[in-house]
Amino acid sequence: MIKVGIVAYGITPFTKDDQKIESLLLKSTKNLFDNNPEIIRNDIDAVLVSTNNNSKYLSPILSEMVGIQPKIAHSIESLCNSGTNSIVSAYSYIVSGLADMVLISGAERNDSPGQILEWDNSRGEFKHPIFWASIFAKSYKRKFSISDEQIALVSVKNHKQAKENPNALSNKTFTIQDVINSKKLTDDLRLLDCSRPCTGSASILLASEETARKITDMPIWITGIGQKTTSAGFTKNTSFSSMESTKLAGQAALKMANHNANDIDVAEVHDAFSVCEPMALESLGFSKPGNGTNMIKELYETNNFKINPRGGLIGSGHPLGATGIAQTIEIIQQLESSATNRQVDNAKIGLVHNMSAAATSSTVLVLEK
Amino acid sequence: MIKVGIVAYGITPFTKDDQKIESLLLKSTKNLFDNNPEIIRNDIDAVLVSTNNNSKYLSPILSEMVGIQPKIAHSIESLCNSGTNSIVSAYSYIVSGLADMVLISGAERNDSPGQILEWDNSRGEFKHPIFWASIFAKSYKRKFSISDEQIALVSVKNHKQAKENPNALSNKTFTIQDVINSKKLTDDLRLLDCSRPCTGSASILLASEETARKITDMPIWITGIGQKTTSAGFTKNTSFSSMESTKLAGQAALKMANHNANDIDVAEVHDAFSVCEPMALESLGFSKPGNGTNMIKELYETNNFKINPRGGLIGSGHPLGATGIAQTIEIIQQLESSATNRQVDNAKIGLVHNMSAAATSSTVLVLEK
Repeated sequence: MIKVGIVAYGITPFTKDDQKIESLLLKSTKNLFDNNPEIIRNDIDAVLVSTNNNSKYLSPILSEMVGIQPKIAHSIESLCNSGTNSIVSAYSYIVSGLADMVLISGAERNDSPGQILEWDNSRGEFKHPIFWASIFAKSYKRKFSISDEQIALVSVKNHKQAKENPNALSNKTFTIQDVINSKKLTDDLRLLDCSRPCTGSASILLASEETARKITDMPIWITGIGQKTTSAGFTKNTSFSSMESTKLAGQAALKMANHNANDIDVAEVHDAFSVCEPMALESLGFSKPGNGTNMIKELYETNNFKINPRGGLIGSGHPLGATGIAQTIEIIQQLESSATNRQVDNAKIGLVHNMSAAATSSTVLVLEK
Repeated sequence: MIKVGIVAYGITPFTKDDQKIESLLLKSTKNLFDNNPEIIRNDIDAVLVSTNNNSKYLSPILSEMVGIQPKIAHSIESLCNSGTNSIVSAYSYIVSGLADMVLISGAERNDSPGQILEWDNSRGEFKHPIFWASIFAKSYKRKFSISDEQIALVSVKNHKQAKENPNALSNKTFTIQDVINSKKLTDDLRLLDCSRPCTGSASILLASEETARKITDMPIWITGIGQKTTSAGFTKNTSFSSMESTKLAGQAALKMANHNANDIDVAEVHDAFSVCEPMALESLGFSKPGNGTNMIKELYETNNFKINPRGGLIGSGHPLGATGIAQTIEIIQQLESSATNRQVDNAKIGLVHNMSAAATSSTVLVLEK
């Protein structure tokens, strides 16, 4: 089978700025090409745009702006999980032989229409994602006797780590008491428990093994892929204290990569809300059920950036269509030892976990150098 | 290489009804499963939704409604060319080994936001597609000395053929004079020269060779794929009297299938406006430059349904995200000799041509039984 490598990336700062979606896509793509002037744009066979933005035909628009005439050009949407869906699509284009090199560009504005779950009638008036996250928090806390303070530490850790990420939306640190005292939004979640929508863009370039080795001395290989959709409406969740789609996607990705969770040196997990991080760590097999917050405490106290080194969604901000790509870029930087103050020692195998809407769908990627 | 076959399809009538996008997707998918009760829904690895609709997360929603828990689930958008982009994506998932069976469902409401080209500043106030089509018509007529009447025959032929298509939006026939006397919308195009937006949905199921042969005695194989994006803004067109992206996509698809244009027994071409049909026939190599309308005249006079047997976009209606899938279903029915009064004699090799926005991007598929 053809191996697929990631050979280049570009990213913008995550902000609250009002920018056009086309400009955002262009900025991270331009950053990618500026950092890799040896790449021949005409060799790019496919351009995939990952976004929840309502604008149409964005892939041909981006292609024209940067001077690419690809074969394949379209937008991909699956809410927060759009970015990694696009990466899996690009992977399959290359393995199938339909493309040799694929550009993926994800972008979102902070007023993204993907933030409100308008389509799920089972939510009644509770259409903001915080309501599923609150049910998760209540269920998880009750089942495993977890305190608000234990969950608040996720936000403390990720804000601390985001301070070392020059592209992060946040550059402030907080104490557990700051999180607990921040505005109470529901019974179980405060403002600082939440990731924030923002404006940002991230792009990566994938290539077949032969082409990847020509472009760079150290391609980052995609060695594991797992995806699962269990439902769309969150009332179909079989549990509110674990993530079924994440568990299945994680198992599939690790099996394909021929690894187990203990082999993973560094991981980006989808902390849309603080409670999601321990739940994801448990569903991915990094920690036993109910033990995720203990793992997070140990990492925090030892200044170990292994989980969400760039600050996660809580620290970095969450531009929906760009998030999965930005998570992937963080793991690339970790594997190529270019993550400066965020660097995890001796990182050889990394994992990306991206999901949508109450973990009704998840994607897990394993990356290796 | 793994062969990919189309093993099932479902479609709704194309109408002017006001229906929810979720209901539309469900209807054609339900039609597919009703016609093929032997298909096991849990064996479906990917669900791709093709649409320009602004609703999010439609693939997981459709999956939940029909009882599928796929690995891969997302929406794909590339304006009018969304449907065939989705088919190519499904093909690559199967060939790459990431999926064995993929459901594609395309749907659109007649108020689709893909109808107005808001994003192209090069169009000034002329954002409706009729303005690029009018420039095409003026250029094509001038270059090859073609009359309005010659172009009007496309509409006459396709309305006649649509009368034999029970799902078509139109069931009326018209004379050349009717077309010429219909409401003049621009200098060069009348109301009856235009396809009409409508509400409709179409779904197909793709499978690997091994699975396809288990499901049906006669899978329809995808033997050729060609795609090209030349630009997004239509002022980048290198010609207004031929379609560059169509030419390149057609050549690639025929080469992959190891055929030439003369081998094609039946074809669906993208007649968004009457002038597009002769231009596409010429760019695909079915006819010499400037000779497309003569070919159309001969087909019409001999009652030969070879080109756009279901009535094309002009006769069938044009629900953007569903169109490429509906075109493909017509070719499937032709190859399996189930096209009743529309049947082309001895159809063994078929072609689908789908495109977007002034032929700035095109997809061509070759299908064989």
